[in-house]
Amino acid sequence: MIKKYVEENEARMLEELFSLIRIPSVSAQPDHKEDMVRCAERWKELLLEAGVDKAEVMPSKGNPMVYAERIVDPNAKTVLVYGHYDVMPAEPFELWKTEPFEPVVKDGHIWARGADDDKGQSFIQAKAFEYINKHDLLKHNMKFIFEGEEEIGSSSLGPFIEEHKELLKCDVILVSDTSLIGADVPSITTGLRGLAYWQIEVTGPNRDLHSGTFGGAVANPANVLCKLIGDVTGPDGKIRFPGFYDDVEEASKEERELVASIPFDEDEYKKSLGIKNIFGEEGYSTIERTGYRPSFDVCGLWSGYQGEGAKTVIPSKAYAKISSRLVPHQDYKKIGQLVVDYFNKVAPDTVSVKIEMLHGGYGYVCPIDFPAYKAAERGFEAVFGKRPLPVRIGGSIPIISTFEKLLGTKSVLMGFGLESNAIHSPNENMPVDLWKKGIEAVVNFHLEYDKEA
Amino acid sequence: MIKKYVEENEARMLEELFSLIRIPSVSAQPDHKEDMVRCAERWKELLLEAGVDKAEVMPSKGNPMVYAERIVDPNAKTVLVYGHYDVMPAEPFELWKTEPFEPVVKDGHIWARGADDDKGQSFIQAKAFEYINKHDLLKHNMKFIFEGEEEIGSSSLGPFIEEHKELLKCDVILVSDTSLIGADVPSITTGLRGLAYWQIEVTGPNRDLHSGTFGGAVANPANVLCKLIGDVTGPDGKIRFPGFYDDVEEASKEERELVASIPFDEDEYKKSLGIKNIFGEEGYSTIERTGYRPSFDVCGLWSGYQGEGAKTVIPSKAYAKISSRLVPHQDYKKIGQLVVDYFNKVAPDTVSVKIEMLHGGYGYVCPIDFPAYKAAERGFEAVFGKRPLPVRIGGSIPIISTFEKLLGTKSVLMGFGLESNAIHSPNENMPVDLWKKGIEAVVNFHLEYDKEA
Repeated sequence: MIKKYVEENEARMLEELFSLIRIPSVSAQPDHKEDMVRCAERWKELLLEAGVDKAEVMPSKGNPMVYAERIVDPNAKTVLVYGHYDVMPAEPFELWKTEPFEPVVKDGHIWARGADDDKGQSFIQAKAFEYINKHDLLKHNMKFIFEGEEEIGSSSLGPFIEEHKELLKCDVILVSDTSLIGADVPSITTGLRGLAYWQIEVTGPNRDLHSGTFGGAVANPANVLCKLIGDVTGPDGKIRFPGFYDDVEEASKEERELVASIPFDEDEYKKSLGIKNIFGEEGYSTIERTGYRPSFDVCGLWSGYQGEGAKTVIPSKAYAKISSRLVPHQDYKKIGQLVVDYFNKVAPDTVSVKIEMLHGGYGYVCPIDFPAYKAAERGFEAVFGKRPLPVRIGGSIPIISTFEKLLGTKSVLMGFGLESNAIHSPNENMPVDLWKKGIEAVVNFHLEYDKEA
Repeated sequence: MIKKYVEENEARMLEELFSLIRIPSVSAQPDHKEDMVRCAERWKELLLEAGVDKAEVMPSKGNPMVYAERIVDPNAKTVLVYGHYDVMPAEPFELWKTEPFEPVVKDGHIWARGADDDKGQSFIQAKAFEYINKHDLLKHNMKFIFEGEEEIGSSSLGPFIEEHKELLKCDVILVSDTSLIGADVPSITTGLRGLAYWQIEVTGPNRDLHSGTFGGAVANPANVLCKLIGDVTGPDGKIRFPGFYDDVEEASKEERELVASIPFDEDEYKKSLGIKNIFGEEGYSTIERTGYRPSFDVCGLWSGYQGEGAKTVIPSKAYAKISSRLVPHQDYKKIGQLVVDYFNKVAPDTVSVKIEMLHGGYGYVCPIDFPAYKAAERGFEAVFGKRPLPVRIGGSIPIISTFEKLLGTKSVLMGFGLESNAIHSPNENMPVDLWKKGIEAVVNFHLEYDKEA
């Protein structure tokens, strides 16, 4: 029935989506300031046409927010859909085979900036709502919040949520802004890593010294920095900051089995990276190492002479930028301090060490036994014919942890992208088939969610 | 007698030296090309006036060489005096209190570029020769070789020596181009360290990677580089390349006792460097660590992001420039290969390591029981009233090892400079008293040398 509805309405739906895409809402470029407002206004109209009770373009400290809601029963559960209407710049234009802001359907794909990220994907949510609402199948309340700064850091979203906690109150957040493992390997992103980032400055002598006159008698800060960093990771890939793993949650046997069934070709992986061998924490697979386990990486390193040839100098200072990707339930503030304390403790008194935390962010995890996750799982299964695999990605989507932090609500990341959709690149696209399957899967989610709730 | 001679001839001698100094023979600056030739010609005249049989300005692949000789007996021993007539640039001129190329005597010092390095010092050799020759005290032959490129690397000297081995053949080389510990703490430089210098390139993935997507699953080349370097130096300050110390010669008990009597204030040393504590090889003093023991220093380090803030990246490459100061009888070629082999062996197969030797040079040592050294010791003692202390300096003077390598001859470094003479800096100077003492000490050397020989 939903399948038939999508088929019959495909042309209209595409035309509606195209009306959004044609507005070049590039948040990174100041000359598109007015396009941001136009795009938000256009979303407001489309949501009203889709059946919400009310929709508003609301001010924020940056680009406006689009808020909409359909309250069927104040005592029922509420699903909040989050999306973003801003897009990445389309440059370099010359690499596009079609016009980035003039969408076309060709070879079964929509080609345009935003076809996937995130206009195409968030439109799936709007049309799934349209269907269940129109057919009186909606048993829970719906809210929508679309922001216009996701591609530039979402800096207005946190303050907006803080200010409108009651308005945005909900039981689960649905987000379509991630990808599937493959068009026939459905998956749901269940975890994102947190982050802690430090800069270390090691100071030895008060000036660069002649390595002949002083070499061997004075601690070299670059030698010391290498020792400090080199000692952190063991040959077993374990990170040796004392207490670092204390709050790391081990995945369940069920989840590890599901993860083990995610297709992964190690030879292909090595080949694509040009490496002879992989390296990571003993006892975990590559997928677990990036999704379920924390990391320790040098991101930058500098000291002394970096030019041509041989300058014989003992540098006065040596620097490193180091970072850890964190996993639930590691708290970046706690880890941040633990690492600062560690380096201050182990540094020899022959140098002075200054370590500063530059940045941090929370990770996120959606437990695979969370009711809304189960609903999403069945929603996918009904359409793709397979249970979706839970995937924890190694990177971070700060907004997801922001929502959890500020609203106390979990998100379910029902994304329908593909790596080949080339988001952020020229020739971004979205397979029409997958887009239509997305609408069906989200409709199924809503129906299943009412059963779970 | 020599004292009296110097007093009586002081004004003439100074005027002769000044005639050399007034020629701005700055080898680093091409517009002084003609001054180089003029200065060489002036030296030729002065050596002839001092009593040599013949003197020549000889071509080299760079600035000309001044060669002179006085052969008293073809079967006698021969002393070769080495010096250089080029000087460092005088810039910045505005920091000079007098004109750099217009020498004056003021407050008992000669003030001018080259007053010490090396016109003033090599003139000491010429005037000592003048005295013993004029007074029929010369029992051995004398040769002089003055080059014009010492301040820019002496690159023509090696080829010149190779081409004129017979001409330059000698039993000992006398060099006045180093400093005393203090005006009342006479010392002789007995050792110079050699050098080996490498660059390491560690390559991980074939491009910079997102530290979220890949962190924990791929070896980070900067982490690996830190580990490789951090493992080289032990907590006891020992350098752990296997075989590194095999050829290091231990100093004799007598020499270590003399070295222990060199004045050294550790608190002052730490204060001047701004460090809380010194660090070096266990079992050796600071002076021994820089003079008698090899070192391992990072001279440069770079990888990934060095800018402001937090960029989360796994760098594709990490680099270091590393060097060792070597001591007798470590061969830089052997050590060079040993270190290359070591890193290639210990590097994990998760990265690829390329290590290349950029530069190397031999060290030098003059044994303190070498007859010419004993003669120099007594030469100093007669004038300063104290046995001079043997000092091995941590840096390198490549020409000294070049002479040893090509002629098979040891040098005795009878230098009369002081740190306060500000060589290479504005307001270079030489205390007239010390300069006169130098002439007396070298005269005494020649007399003592004939007894030893």
